[in-house]
Amino acid sequence: MSNPIRVTVWHEFRHEKRNEKVGAIYPDGMHMPIANYLQEQGFEVKTATLDEEQHGLTEEVLAQTDVLTWWGHMAHGEVQDEIVQRVHKRVLEGMGLIVLHSGHFSKIFQKLMGTTCNLRWREANETERLWVVQPGHPIARNVGPYIELEAEEMYGEFFDIPQPDELIFVSWFAGGEVFRSGATFTRGLGKIFYFRPGHETFPTYHNREILNVIANAAQWAAPSHGPAPQFGNFKPLEDLSRFAG
Amino acid sequence: MSNPIRVTVWHEFRHEKRNEKVGAIYPDGMHMPIANYLQEQGFEVKTATLDEEQHGLTEEVLAQTDVLTWWGHMAHGEVQDEIVQRVHKRVLEGMGLIVLHSGHFSKIFQKLMGTTCNLRWREANETERLWVVQPGHPIARNVGPYIELEAEEMYGEFFDIPQPDELIFVSWFAGGEVFRSGATFTRGLGKIFYFRPGHETFPTYHNREILNVIANAAQWAAPSHGPAPQFGNFKPLEDLSRFAG
Amino acid sequence: MSNPIRVTVWHEFRHEKRNEKVGAIYPDGMHMPIANYLQEQGFEVKTATLDEEQHGLTEEVLAQTDVLTWWGHMAHGEVQDEIVQRVHKRVLEGMGLIVLHSGHFSKIFQKLMGTTCNLRWREANETERLWVVQPGHPIARNVGPYIELEAEEMYGEFFDIPQPDELIFVSWFAGGEVFRSGATFTRGLGKIFYFRPGHETFPTYHNREILNVIANAAQWAAPSHGPAPQFGNFKPLEDLSRFAG
Amino acid sequence: MSNPIRVTVWHEFRHEKRNEKVGAIYPDGMHMPIANYLQEQGFEVKTATLDEEQHGLTEEVLAQTDVLTWWGHMAHGEVQDEIVQRVHKRVLEGMGLIVLHSGHFSKIFQKLMGTTCNLRWREANETERLWVVQPGHPIARNVGPYIELEAEEMYGEFFDIPQPDELIFVSWFAGGEVFRSGATFTRGLGKIFYFRPGHETFPTYHNREILNVIANAAQWAAPSHGPAPQFGNFKPLEDLSRFAG
Repeated sequence: MSNPIRVTVWHEFRHEKRNEKVGAIYPDGMHMPIANYLQEQGFEVKTATLDEEQHGLTEEVLAQTDVLTWWGHMAHGEVQDEIVQRVHKRVLEGMGLIVLHSGHFSKIFQKLMGTTCNLRWREANETERLWVVQPGHPIARNVGPYIELEAEEMYGEFFDIPQPDELIFVSWFAGGEVFRSGATFTRGLGKIFYFRPGHETFPTYHNREILNVIANAAQWAAPSHGPAPQFGNFKPLEDLSRFAG
Repeated sequence: MSNPIRVTVWHEFRHEKRNEKVGAIYPDGMHMPIANYLQEQGFEVKTATLDEEQHGLTEEVLAQTDVLTWWGHMAHGEVQDEIVQRVHKRVLEGMGLIVLHSGHFSKIFQKLMGTTCNLRWREANETERLWVVQPGHPIARNVGPYIELEAEEMYGEFFDIPQPDELIFVSWFAGGEVFRSGATFTRGLGKIFYFRPGHETFPTYHNREILNVIANAAQWAAPSHGPAPQFGNFKPLEDLSRFAG
Repeated sequence: MSNPIRVTVWHEFRHEKRNEKVGAIYPDGMHMPIANYLQEQGFEVKTATLDEEQHGLTEEVLAQTDVLTWWGHMAHGEVQDEIVQRVHKRVLEGMGLIVLHSGHFSKIFQKLMGTTCNLRWREANETERLWVVQPGHPIARNVGPYIELEAEEMYGEFFDIPQPDELIFVSWFAGGEVFRSGATFTRGLGKIFYFRPGHETFPTYHNREILNVIANAAQWAAPSHGPAPQFGNFKPLEDLSRFAG
Repeated sequence: MSNPIRVTVWHEFRHEKRNEKVGAIYPDGMHMPIANYLQEQGFEVKTATLDEEQHGLTEEVLAQTDVLTWWGHMAHGEVQDEIVQRVHKRVLEGMGLIVLHSGHFSKIFQKLMGTTCNLRWREANETERLWVVQPGHPIARNVGPYIELEAEEMYGEFFDIPQPDELIFVSWFAGGEVFRSGATFTRGLGKIFYFRPGHETFPTYHNREILNVIANAAQWAAPSHGPAPQFGNFKPLEDLSRFAG
């Protein structure tokens, strides 16, 4: 418990360079306010982006990552299958994964879920309220009864994911929809948290309530050092005579 | 599958007699449109109400009940503990239970949940939309993407229940709240479905979309004829020599 | 409920032709006792096997299948990715899937689970007891407290699957292991049941207790006719003035 | 995270005084090896026992308890209902609860579960193996693929509890049974862990693998400081004009 948790903040980093509005809100990229906040909170933080070599996710980087956050949108298809496979393997080994907003359609999330991860959506600057439905969960630490975002993109049900292990947030949208916006999953030894907010045209990742949830999730998703699975052919219990029934 | 499922529709039956508005909407009681619909659908239906002897829930009646529906509100405290105990025992043995609206505060639901079952609420004639979040569940049979009720009482999170086994509906309310409004639980061999809509001042139980959900739930909650539990002291496997490892 | 449920029993059908012992136990293939039993129980049954054109799983066959059962072992790699994709799509649309024994390593199960589905194993003719841990579930209909198989292959934990929606059977093996041997999952509108027993060198699919579980699962996994998902861009609730708060 | 977690180890403390064999294994009571181990691991530890005033669980003690552990067996009926109520209230507010072995039949566990919590059992000095089925969970930290206890009492399925939120251990017993022996539940803001081993005639609480699990559970069950529920009558979202759809 003495070593800091090592987080790699992965980001597509394309919208900021092509859309002035996005670039104005996130001049250094959407990943930077996340990375900076996590660092403030005591995490050891790296960033990695799509256009780096191997998308910045070399074997070495992943081996030194406890928790990976993932934001992508316009270029999901450019993420190489080999890197997706590598991240998948690390999640099963215990690396935490936090999938943000439009990351719902990333190859890695779809591969882990086994479903399309499709949903309803609308860009209409509408109010979102994220209600806490499991207030005892560590990801809800220091959150109020709800988090209100004045304007966000709408995501609505049906959200094509497996039933979550734990449902923590449900969003209300002014236009009439609801969404399971904070949900946990386990795959292998890896803990996964999907968190909805974060459309690129809104300053959502400057909101400290949202950043607090991401930090809570990084804390929760860090590896727990449980038993590495032993697969294959095994002999039986050697000495059944121990049974004295 | 040849015998019809036997449903007992239990109702408090007090508001209708004391409040003209409620009496006008439900002249024969809120239980009657439910009972009539279920009968139309081929269920074998009885009704039982608070002011009957033993609240209409004698040992004999319960022994012949596959699924019990429960609506109560102003008189939860008048339900005798002995009858609650009797219903509880039958649920654990496999009788289905459908808890409706303000039944969330009934003694039987609290006893089965182990929590307060408390919530936020508001009477404001506001629009409710019940979104389907698990479209493959038999309780969502013949339901659209959502059910809309023009005016209902609001119930909002946090709803103090255990994590449901399956979450099927999430409600959106015009005033800004969400609610886990259709949720299943298992206790012993008994299947339980909580379904939110049904405030006494609205014609909700005349709505055939709502009635369809109740009928689906009655079908789903009927006993499955699994193994009766064997509790107590048991001998070990007699012949361990069968192990040829 | 008047139309019979249409089951397609898919089978690899290789061991029987190459291994005399297997051929002696299942002269017509392992799929035939399953298909015959389901037919006796009133299901409408087809079979399909690996070496047929398109593995017997054409678009037409799948369109007319309510529930697909899947047994494979030595030739998982020969199943074409295009067919796996086709089955996956049908499951998300609502087709039930029952994965049997060594089908845990099939492409379709791995794709739906998002994990390796790996496990411990041992071939030692040892006794297996499948204990019912959710006796109220329809898949446990007419099952006793446990099912005992005198000799089976051992599968042991850790079984690398996501947390099941519902855990129904847990196996005990004489050699010292346990296994989550009956587990349900939902993906899209599709219900999935994994059921462990059925090694090719044992007469497990001649056991009527095992066949009863498969029939219960076929009943349970049939499509429920819930709402087809509506994905994409949607307008908001048109008339917010309905809110009278 | 700087303040130590405050654990109160509650114990019935009767068997040790009446049964020489138990007294020889646990001369200071079964609670002491647990309390000592937790203290070594940095927890702030109190003990409390049945025969103390208010069973040692005054309002003040509970207010200063983050996690309560509970072992009882022969005297469940002597625990006062008022104290059970007080513990229940604290769990819903967020206090963690670890229920050990025969505590499955305690009033507080039954009240939280809503079921009988009954099971099969046998005293036969037989080998138990607790297999890890969720290796990524923090309660499995530093555990191997299984924990083996040379001799323990047997508990077998069906164990009449609700479906756990998370199933972490499943036990194998030499005599032929399995048991869900490590399971988590949430009630209100409180996290609950049931852990099977610990019959009074065996030195189970001197086993450091077992003590490690209890310490992991105490860490996991500590309050997370989420939002205190707001129940009752609430006004709607004040300014719907913020919706710019």
